[in-house]
Amino acid sequence: MTKACFITLEGGEGVGKTTNVNFITTQLDAANIPWIKTREPGGTPLAEAIRNLLLASEAETPCHLTELLLMFAGRAQHLDQVIRPALAQGIWVVCDRFTDASYAYQGGGRGQSEVTLALLENLVHQDLQPDLTLLLDMPVEAASKRVDSRGQQRDRFEQEQLAFFQRVREGYLNRAHQHPLRFRVVDASLSLAEVKAQVLGYLQPLLNDALTASSAP
Amino acid sequence: MTKACFITLEGGEGVGKTTNVNFITTQLDAANIPWIKTREPGGTPLAEAIRNLLLASEAETPCHLTELLLMFAGRAQHLDQVIRPALAQGIWVVCDRFTDASYAYQGGGRGQSEVTLALLENLVHQDLQPDLTLLLDMPVEAASKRVDSRGQQRDRFEQEQLAFFQRVREGYLNRAHQHPLRFRVVDASLSLAEVKAQVLGYLQPLLNDALTASSAP
Repeated sequence: MTKACFITLEGGEGVGKTTNVNFITTQLDAANIPWIKTREPGGTPLAEAIRNLLLASEAETPCHLTELLLMFAGRAQHLDQVIRPALAQGIWVVCDRFTDASYAYQGGGRGQSEVTLALLENLVHQDLQPDLTLLLDMPVEAASKRVDSRGQQRDRFEQEQLAFFQRVREGYLNRAHQHPLRFRVVDASLSLAEVKAQVLGYLQPLLNDALTASSAP
Repeated sequence: MTKACFITLEGGEGVGKTTNVNFITTQLDAANIPWIKTREPGGTPLAEAIRNLLLASEAETPCHLTELLLMFAGRAQHLDQVIRPALAQGIWVVCDRFTDASYAYQGGGRGQSEVTLALLENLVHQDLQPDLTLLLDMPVEAASKRVDSRGQQRDRFEQEQLAFFQRVREGYLNRAHQHPLRFRVVDASLSLAEVKAQVLGYLQPLLNDALTASSAP
């Protein structure tokens, strides 16, 4: 059995994560690699219930520390029930957002310290990091227009102001700078074809490794 | 304004916490002290929603780390919305369970390390500890019979086995041993009149301090 890879897609609202998650799983299918796609917050029934508490805009607003702890509570469940079991069975995991999103949103956006973030990251998944993190990056004004064009009601995060999303973007870029080996920054303001070409370029080394391993004697 | 006190009641299932919370608030009324009573997990609409996720026996079972993080997520909200604002206004807080319960249940019961517990305790309320913690202690077999006699369906914690409750009891007693200044251990196997007499004896110094402070020139 070849080592299964853990791929995360990161970025603010409207940068095209869903489209590119689906593009990646199509590539995995073409390479005959087993996969699951999942998302955070969420990914299990309990973690989705936690997501609902986090995203509801009409309910009691969580204080910043509660928001952070709920994010990691859902993540611990998602790792325990979905991500670790899949990887252990050789199934690749493609996840729409993971811990880097907590650094960007609860850290950059809400001002929680990196020390606090690192403390919770170590508590919940000291031993496991994504093999590849694709950061879909674009100016926040353009991304916000894309969210508007969906015509859906904005959730509690999507209702934040541009200054918040600017801090989230900087939080993500800072995180990419700190972890250059697993992060790849994709220019999400380009055309979809160009974005997909970038994504495929960054995915290809993992696909090549899988192919080499599966054809080894 | 005299300093408001934060009083917590701790103990396993069936030891009489609710009865004694009400007994304490009656004493506070008699001393003309403003108070609120509250509980954990819970105490705010969001924290009660988290409580429901924690106690539901039919839903997806949280892994031990998720259970622990949900407990502290609710606690952070409860502190932010209820406990700290009340104390800041001079209102005494009487709380049915607090962080010592996490040490007993998630620590003693589930085996989470004291290092992890202390890390989350420090993150969520480094600066605030109860002024008085009454631990209602009794043998677990007798307490379990009391729970049965209520005739209600047991929640996810109440469905645990006696060995679990024995570890919870030991976790509580260990915690009381570590914090002798604020903990008072009440023998909850005695008659209700005797239990109330013990509780009142431990409460009296706080009532005396409040009386002295309020009558000071």
